Amino acid sequence: MSSLIEPRLLQGFRDYPPAAMLPKERVLETARRVYRSYGYAPIDTPALEYAEVLLGKGGGENDRLVYRFKDHGDRDVALRFDLTVPFARFSAVNVPQLGTPFKRYAMGPVWRGERPGQGRYREFWQCDFDTIGTTSNASDIEVALVINDLFTALGFEKFTIRVNNRLLLNGLLDSIGVLDKAVPVLRSLDKLGKIGREKVIEEMTREANISADQAARVLVLAEATGNNAEILNAAEAAFGGSVNDQARRGLTNLRELLTACEQAGVPDGRVVIDLSIARGLDYYTGTIYETTLNDLPGIGSVCSGGRYDNLAGLYTKQVLPGVGASLGVDRLLAAMEELKHPWMTGTATPADVLVINFDSQRIGDYQRIARSLRAAGVGVEVYPEVKKPKNQFEYADKRGFKVAVIAGGDEFSRGMWKVKDLKKRQETEVVEVELVSTVGRILGERGA
Amino acid sequence: MSSLIEPRLLQGFRDYPPAAMLPKERVLETARRVYRSYGYAPIDTPALEYAEVLLGKGGGENDRLVYRFKDHGDRDVALRFDLTVPFARFSAVNVPQLGTPFKRYAMGPVWRGERPGQGRYREFWQCDFDTIGTTSNASDIEVALVINDLFTALGFEKFTIRVNNRLLLNGLLDSIGVLDKAVPVLRSLDKLGKIGREKVIEEMTREANISADQAARVLVLAEATGNNAEILNAAEAAFGGSVNDQARRGLTNLRELLTACEQAGVPDGRVVIDLSIARGLDYYTGTIYETTLNDLPGIGSVCSGGRYDNLAGLYTKQVLPGVGASLGVDRLLAAMEELKHPWMTGTATPADVLVINFDSQRIGDYQRIARSLRAAGVGVEVYPEVKKPKNQFEYADKRGFKVAVIAGGDEFSRGMWKVKDLKKRQETEVVEVELVSTVGRILGERGA
Repeated sequence: MSSLIEPRLLQGFRDYPPAAMLPKERVLETARRVYRSYGYAPIDTPALEYAEVLLGKGGGENDRLVYRFKDHGDRDVALRFDLTVPFARFSAVNVPQLGTPFKRYAMGPVWRGERPGQGRYREFWQCDFDTIGTTSNASDIEVALVINDLFTALGFEKFTIRVNNRLLLNGLLDSIGVLDKAVPVLRSLDKLGKIGREKVIEEMTREANISADQAARVLVLAEATGNNAEILNAAEAAFGGSVNDQARRGLTNLRELLTACEQAGVPDGRVVIDLSIARGLDYYTGTIYETTLNDLPGIGSVCSGGRYDNLAGLYTKQVLPGVGASLGVDRLLAAMEELKHPWMTGTATPADVLVINFDSQRIGDYQRIARSLRAAGVGVEVYPEVKKPKNQFEYADKRGFKVAVIAGGDEFSRGMWKVKDLKKRQETEVVEVELVSTVGRILGERGA
Repeated sequence: MSSLIEPRLLQGFRDYPPAAMLPKERVLETARRVYRSYGYAPIDTPALEYAEVLLGKGGGENDRLVYRFKDHGDRDVALRFDLTVPFARFSAVNVPQLGTPFKRYAMGPVWRGERPGQGRYREFWQCDFDTIGTTSNASDIEVALVINDLFTALGFEKFTIRVNNRLLLNGLLDSIGVLDKAVPVLRSLDKLGKIGREKVIEEMTREANISADQAARVLVLAEATGNNAEILNAAEAAFGGSVNDQARRGLTNLRELLTACEQAGVPDGRVVIDLSIARGLDYYTGTIYETTLNDLPGIGSVCSGGRYDNLAGLYTKQVLPGVGASLGVDRLLAAMEELKHPWMTGTATPADVLVINFDSQRIGDYQRIARSLRAAGVGVEVYPEVKKPKNQFEYADKRGFKVAVIAGGDEFSRGMWKVKDLKKRQETEVVEVELVSTVGRILGERGA
């Protein structure tokens, strides 16, 4: 073939070679295991849907970003840009049969034609879990527990689950008479950490057209300091003695959440009330969650979510309140890379053991002992070609194998196998029945 | 909202509710585990690529089927229609750095705008594994071992791995002087099982323009009967004493594969030489694999593949020979449904245990004991609302929970938990420290 096609990728898209995919699969497997352990069940929905279904009445930011086109049948279709809208459409169709409460998780790629940038891709994974069909605070509490167990299972010790409740914020806005300006006020409030108190007040007066006094009262709430109890007491105090019903519910729900997390065994200091977070301005209506890594707070939240009043109002009259959160897989992986997380090994093989190939007529024997190791849960690759051992050991090093199993003609005649610890460069000779236990011992020492 | 959007799906696309997704995830997890145990490493590539990259020079069947459109930047893009073409593009870019041999698996959805029909969807999953960069027959042997271990791990006992080798077929075509007509001849041969001997000969003479005698000699090869050794001997005999080099290599590779599979412990009768299979007419060049379920042969092969000479010739001058196969996930799941495979339980929850909720103030305690069960690997859902126990038990039955854990005020005051086997409808009362072992015992009896 004289003219080759350039094997280029679209901008904003990427390949995952093994060294990147292995930790990603491990993150996804961990999320799957933790979500399942709480009874969240997997669902999947198509990548491609009617544009009308995904974009609703349209006119929002999504319209600009979505990959939308005409298919073979001239249907107006689009690639999903999140997992929430397809879940809403799914729920409108299926929840009548499935019943409530309904707990689901979903994992998969979504597509947005945003300008690609550092850590921002046009194809990226979402990894969501939600309970719908109940307003019970027990489900809100559970979301915090799931996040705690998830990040613990992901190998983190130092992380903080920040919670807030929109009822508290909305209650305060109502009590100071600016509830109708909630969206611009909260948008400004969200910038507190970035631009500081003065600029936030200035922006609130300008954008939301509220007084500096009103803005300052909103900030009292967000600037409350101390431990969780002190913050909640300060928030209560911000109402000047007359906490309205809405805020009262918010306070009660947050207090219940803290108590239940403590009773359920979540470590002290893990769950923190942070009245400054106000994400998802026109979507979340109750508890709000963000999760930050204590050693890398700058990357922002790696698992966020909240409670909403009605998931699927675009498609059905059935009111489906719910609560959930989403693991930011790509952001988390970038953080793990930066933090030199122990899962980011650079290893390019899922198997720990390489069987060195000395004789193409012995493939059956090599694979026989490989299968005995596999049956014991150990991954084993048999090198496919009879090359110089030096080359095969170089391959083992490059890929990141931990143990080599070696048998040439001499070993076969004596019924022995050599087992080599590739890190310590130590060789042991064992009879075949001891092979599995010997390899297991070396991998155990290596913490594999 | 007065005007609702109809939550309809595109034709040929579907939702996976939990009862369908749970077995699908189990199949994918099993494939992942088996592939990894042999050292195949995961990779992933984008769903969306330049149309030129996916379609090559174009003009083939794929052009009609592919979802192709102009993106925001007016780029000509398309959704992948298989995982092989993206793997070829990936390899051209990455294999120079990754080195060979390179073993990868990939799992994910692909899209084809075919006319949807029974069991045929426009979005479906592929689940491929390949070794590239080596011509060693050891890799061909390994593909058969992987298929054997995969279907065993999927819970099948009665399945057959059918193997053939294109070198044998091509060698015979060469020796009878019709090699240039290989494509139409093999296309007819592929129909032997469906339309029978007479019609195949008729079609070969008509479509490939070869003589009836020549057609009969091709059929000798495909109609050889007996055990594997007898079939290979009959095939050799079809050459009339002068087996050419090409066919000799095909015979040797098949014999080595049979020997190695036997030595490696694959059960007798599992791997069967079937000289009538000739899939992937212009792609495969050596060993060919098909896998049939003995109790449902009519659905066709559920895992197929073969050896090819050059994966990525469209994109690079580096010659990358390889061998691999692909699990047909959707066809397999349809077969499992039809065969009432034990994984097709209809269960809609990944958790085995439901904690009945009697008191919203006890959520912390419910979650504490739920977490102790989760730590022991048991999935536990805490019912989020305080409803009548009858309603909660109905929920448990509908979802498919196996065990309920019950504590109301009375049990709390005595420090006891009730554990109910939901199938046997038997209740046991235990102290908290015995809860995990009691639940474990019931689930163990249930084979969970």
